[in-house]
Amino acid sequence: MSGAPEASGVPGFPAMAPDERTSYTLREIAERLGGEISGNPEVRVRQVATLENATGDTISFLANDRYLAQLKSTRAGAVIVSRTAHEATEIPRIVCTNPYAYFARVSALLNPEPAPQPGVHDTAVVDRTATVEAGVEIGPHAVVGRNASIGAQSIIGAGCYVGEDAVIGRSARLYPNVTVYHGCVLGDRVILHSGVVVGADGFGIAMEDERWRKVPQIGRVVIGDDVEVGANTTIDRGTLEDTVIEDGVKLDNQIQVGHNVRIGAHTAIAACAGIAGSAKIGRHCRIGGASGIAGHLTIGDNVEISAHTLITKSIERAGAYAGAYPFGAQSEWRKNAAQLRHLNELAERVRELEKTLARLERSKP
Amino acid sequence: MSGAPEASGVPGFPAMAPDERTSYTLREIAERLGGEISGNPEVRVRQVATLENATGDTISFLANDRYLAQLKSTRAGAVIVSRTAHEATEIPRIVCTNPYAYFARVSALLNPEPAPQPGVHDTAVVDRTATVEAGVEIGPHAVVGRNASIGAQSIIGAGCYVGEDAVIGRSARLYPNVTVYHGCVLGDRVILHSGVVVGADGFGIAMEDERWRKVPQIGRVVIGDDVEVGANTTIDRGTLEDTVIEDGVKLDNQIQVGHNVRIGAHTAIAACAGIAGSAKIGRHCRIGGASGIAGHLTIGDNVEISAHTLITKSIERAGAYAGAYPFGAQSEWRKNAAQLRHLNELAERVRELEKTLARLERSKP
Amino acid sequence: MSGAPEASGVPGFPAMAPDERTSYTLREIAERLGGEISGNPEVRVRQVATLENATGDTISFLANDRYLAQLKSTRAGAVIVSRTAHEATEIPRIVCTNPYAYFARVSALLNPEPAPQPGVHDTAVVDRTATVEAGVEIGPHAVVGRNASIGAQSIIGAGCYVGEDAVIGRSARLYPNVTVYHGCVLGDRVILHSGVVVGADGFGIAMEDERWRKVPQIGRVVIGDDVEVGANTTIDRGTLEDTVIEDGVKLDNQIQVGHNVRIGAHTAIAACAGIAGSAKIGRHCRIGGASGIAGHLTIGDNVEISAHTLITKSIERAGAYAGAYPFGAQSEWRKNAAQLRHLNELAERVRELEKTLARLERSKP
Repeated sequence: MSGAPEASGVPGFPAMAPDERTSYTLREIAERLGGEISGNPEVRVRQVATLENATGDTISFLANDRYLAQLKSTRAGAVIVSRTAHEATEIPRIVCTNPYAYFARVSALLNPEPAPQPGVHDTAVVDRTATVEAGVEIGPHAVVGRNASIGAQSIIGAGCYVGEDAVIGRSARLYPNVTVYHGCVLGDRVILHSGVVVGADGFGIAMEDERWRKVPQIGRVVIGDDVEVGANTTIDRGTLEDTVIEDGVKLDNQIQVGHNVRIGAHTAIAACAGIAGSAKIGRHCRIGGASGIAGHLTIGDNVEISAHTLITKSIERAGAYAGAYPFGAQSEWRKNAAQLRHLNELAERVRELEKTLARLERSKP
Repeated sequence: MSGAPEASGVPGFPAMAPDERTSYTLREIAERLGGEISGNPEVRVRQVATLENATGDTISFLANDRYLAQLKSTRAGAVIVSRTAHEATEIPRIVCTNPYAYFARVSALLNPEPAPQPGVHDTAVVDRTATVEAGVEIGPHAVVGRNASIGAQSIIGAGCYVGEDAVIGRSARLYPNVTVYHGCVLGDRVILHSGVVVGADGFGIAMEDERWRKVPQIGRVVIGDDVEVGANTTIDRGTLEDTVIEDGVKLDNQIQVGHNVRIGAHTAIAACAGIAGSAKIGRHCRIGGASGIAGHLTIGDNVEISAHTLITKSIERAGAYAGAYPFGAQSEWRKNAAQLRHLNELAERVRELEKTLARLERSKP
Repeated sequence: MSGAPEASGVPGFPAMAPDERTSYTLREIAERLGGEISGNPEVRVRQVATLENATGDTISFLANDRYLAQLKSTRAGAVIVSRTAHEATEIPRIVCTNPYAYFARVSALLNPEPAPQPGVHDTAVVDRTATVEAGVEIGPHAVVGRNASIGAQSIIGAGCYVGEDAVIGRSARLYPNVTVYHGCVLGDRVILHSGVVVGADGFGIAMEDERWRKVPQIGRVVIGDDVEVGANTTIDRGTLEDTVIEDGVKLDNQIQVGHNVRIGAHTAIAACAGIAGSAKIGRHCRIGGASGIAGHLTIGDNVEISAHTLITKSIERAGAYAGAYPFGAQSEWRKNAAQLRHLNELAERVRELEKTLARLERSKP
């Protein structure tokens, strides 16, 4: 290893200059992360790269046999491959069971997250009753409210707002312009990307005398450890109890999580999905982009939902579910969609045909 | 009542500590809000709760007979019920016609919104030509532009931006990190949650010589009284005239309202819906999550639209409309979706069968 | 022309007071923008307007014959029309080939974007290593990180964050509360509306031992010239290489662009669309609201996609594609959707009918 990453001196989330970069030999990597080396273990790599655009000082990976042709032609200095693809190349390589996860670990080794620069920026406003543990970085124009608490080694980015009584765990990372409402609780190593809003009021309204009356939202949002939340995703506070995001959940960008929802541990949800109020989602689910879960439903563990699917009934059984409309050329779509408006009638006509035909057959001489 | 809520001294939107909480007897509640008491009117409650998790000092409610079993087993100190459910419990109770709305009012009584802490935070930047009425709270790092106006008792949260010539009504509440562009007008008691953007340019572009030319967006956004807008919702300014949100409209999170749209009074729209440019929506509509209204359409009053439905034609008649694809196991969905691509052809084949069969029947001896 | 627009002296994006407005005669307009004048060329207009609400000192336009009746009744002082509609009115008019684009140019003439007010606001935090070119306006509470660069004449609005090593081109305009992560590169004349997040981490996660492991996102976002991005849209940085938005692309509000995506020049995408990771979209495409492009697909040039359509296969051929479910009254929808769940079976029954009938016909005497 060519040296520890140098601490950077500016507010925010710095990238390192290339010449300060860490590098590793395959031997050093395998010592840390496991795997078996084939070929020269002293090959040194400085960065990860795609097979297609790799250069001699980078390491690439093959996670899918679809890219075998790229493996043949890559100029990577080293590659990460599975046992089955092991003999498909002569390039110095690390052989392991899960090349994509291994690659993620190598990339993290070569691209360590910048450490927090402990201190509160002069322009930040931190209430004197707030608790700020050791090693915390609070960026310019951030606001930390009364009795809020920021765990050790966390970074609160520029312009973030952490409301009264909110609790941020240790080694958390709030990118600039995140909003955490009062009373919400985030675990350790939580990452919130810019524009995330945690704890806004849920959509609780009651109709009375032809007008909507607001239902106070007095629950919190409680987020477990190792949760990452993508840019501009919103997670509403509970009406009476808490909205809960369990450990290890990964939410992509622009997802809406309604009040009183619970999302089970290690579930991953792709961008633009909407989880309506009081839905309960199990553990280890995978939910596709722009899909929706209707309110008050229960989704079991290990359920996979395709993109653009609206789930309107609870799902107990693990498995894959789908419900997107199949696209086509607009002219074809128009004809099929027009028929779809009369599908019930078409089915009725088929039943009639079946009856008539049965009668005809019976009356056949 | 155990005492008035104590004013809190920090910027932002504080929650009260439990020991400062207001409490009320059923008698005190009914004196303020109406309804009839059955059982001991001196029971004192400090908070609202679900039937399931209520304790002796909380009041719960039954709005739906589906939860009758929970009513039987609840440990709530008091409940709010309709006349029909009145005899289903012995717990001290308030009987009324609309338990959910009554509950909302009790909750608001027990959980009053914190009053503004009048004053402009030292770090806020308020143009000297701006008008700030009495009792306004302007939080840290907020910016109020030239000739903007903030009505009495309003709260402008940390990091909010109120552009030049914008007008915010009285008792409005902008949570942290809201953006209101120049010239937009908000009514009284408007609530904008974090990340809301009011008045960004509409998507006006004209194709010329194979390039898009921007069409200036010179209208405003005009929002009536008692409108609430959820986190990260965006409402674009009009192209030439105004985008208008009438009184009492409730918008959930992550909704997109295009330029020149008008949304009629007391319409409620669930999260992730998209209202395309120049659509006109009536009063008292209910629009489901992730639904869409195409541009330039007119939707009448009292129209209900289900989640994930795209409205492509104007709707005059009140009623319920839907258009989500029915989800299923992926294997089933795949087969059905494949057929859907040929539905027009299938319908044609049914027509052929009908003709052939009719001919056969006619030719029967 | 009644005088140059007066520079305004406050931070942000000021609108001009009406009495400071520019005005032009038709002759002055045509001298600048081309087109032929019919009627009095000395008519002076101060603003653009719709046909319906125009007044004597405004100019309107007819881009679609559907509005011919409005042309007859308008009180506009002047209108912009195509050659075909030229004789449909007596109002002084400019005749041109593309009235909507011409109107856009007239509107831009009458409503010039306010020029930047050069200078860095006292409350902004600009790292001393950042490059700020001439004529740049940096608003209150903005943050510009280490080694970032802001091109001449650009405006960085209040509360914006420009990360370390980011590059903003010339005459760019970041409205308040925009976030640009470290290392991202924006071209000249780029407009980012409030709440936009450029360069957040893509959704890269690898499953290992029943947990998600984060895949570092070390690419950048690179945005070309003349790109406009609507409020609260998010564009993720690449995993290993860059996410690229080519010149002249127009993105509406609340769009999600995943990591490694490339969007070709002059493509326009309507609000709430989601482009999944590694998708490549061609030039001059038009993509409808709330549509989706699945990951790793390639979409050719000049492809049009309707609103609420999910594209699940690559599209080579230019043309129009669609895939929204046709909405209807809820009662009708329910019946048809129920049948759709059995469409494959229905098709099977039709095949059976066809076989049976063919057999019957053959056996006919």
